[in-house]
Amino acid sequence: MARWEGNTRERLERAALELFRDQGYDRTTVAQIAGHAGLTERSFYRWFTDKREVLFAGDELQACLEAGIAEVPAGTGALATLMAAFTAVPEVLRPPEMLIELRAVIADNPPLRERSLIKEAMLSEVTTAALCRRGHDEHTARLATALGMAILGSATRRWVLGERADFADLLAGSAADLVAVAADLPPGQGHSGKAPRKTR
Amino acid sequence: MARWEGNTRERLERAALELFRDQGYDRTTVAQIAGHAGLTERSFYRWFTDKREVLFAGDELQACLEAGIAEVPAGTGALATLMAAFTAVPEVLRPPEMLIELRAVIADNPPLRERSLIKEAMLSEVTTAALCRRGHDEHTARLATALGMAILGSATRRWVLGERADFADLLAGSAADLVAVAADLPPGQGHSGKAPRKTR
Repeated sequence: MARWEGNTRERLERAALELFRDQGYDRTTVAQIAGHAGLTERSFYRWFTDKREVLFAGDELQACLEAGIAEVPAGTGALATLMAAFTAVPEVLRPPEMLIELRAVIADNPPLRERSLIKEAMLSEVTTAALCRRGHDEHTARLATALGMAILGSATRRWVLGERADFADLLAGSAADLVAVAADLPPGQGHSGKAPRKTR
Repeated sequence: MARWEGNTRERLERAALELFRDQGYDRTTVAQIAGHAGLTERSFYRWFTDKREVLFAGDELQACLEAGIAEVPAGTGALATLMAAFTAVPEVLRPPEMLIELRAVIADNPPLRERSLIKEAMLSEVTTAALCRRGHDEHTARLATALGMAILGSATRRWVLGERADFADLLAGSAADLVAVAADLPPGQGHSGKAPRKTR
């Protein structure tokens, strides 16, 4: 636990994951989690609104992406904006072995799976709205969000699966793979007439 | 109602949407829907397992895409396979004015919104699995699914919003727009080393 020792929130997250793994999510109480971490229930509720939120890092990724997007210079293209914002993501990612356990708990529990999908959908909505506020039209913002989330999801998955590259390199690699997959589209596809506004 | 008259399932769908709009989803019973359509409850349950499924066209889109993918010649690239499969989609799409009402009912009701997200996630899983069975590696299959679903979602949204082009043209236009948005990525991105297998 070296790196996370002493960090109250991560101690609670680790304690929760251990109990969820050993006795199941439904049978675990907030009091048990706090006790297992050697902390009080009150400490728990300082970090998380309920037992479920301990699995979702309290909307940290959403805040991180919104802040990252806000820092990108005006006039940057929609997808380039997201790629720049993703450089802040490693700071909120948990270590791979924690993410693996966390994903196993979620996969095992249908209400948690639903919650996870809702969080993802909310993240996409927030990202699309942030791009629209920066002057991108909604059509472009939605497509850029879909591409960005596919790249982020792919890079995170490879990281969880054990690829030990720098996260920026994983992102760049997944972006390159996405472009290679898109190259599959027949050339000379028609155009919707709604040209994405290139602001870069 | 011309085009859909006489089709039992669409009569039930229209009756359900009218009642959901006029008196709310939660206050509407299956008996009322059947009565409003001039049919029996038994007819309703021949088509739908419950009240909720009337909004989701009974997994028709999933069956349509799986059948469409199976018909694509072996050796076709992953995304090209999905684009070919999408040509069968218009057959299961409801008319725009029905889709607009349907989306409004779903947007208004959190449990239905969750259900809708779960259906979408299931559709992506099924599509990814179908591509893997055709010999594409999982990494490529997931990226192609993300791109394909973004294109399909964009084309459907434009269709619902009133663009009256042929659905194949909407798909081609959204695909071209997606490629334009992807062009935003900095050139010379690193590569993950897991080259997507090009089978075309």
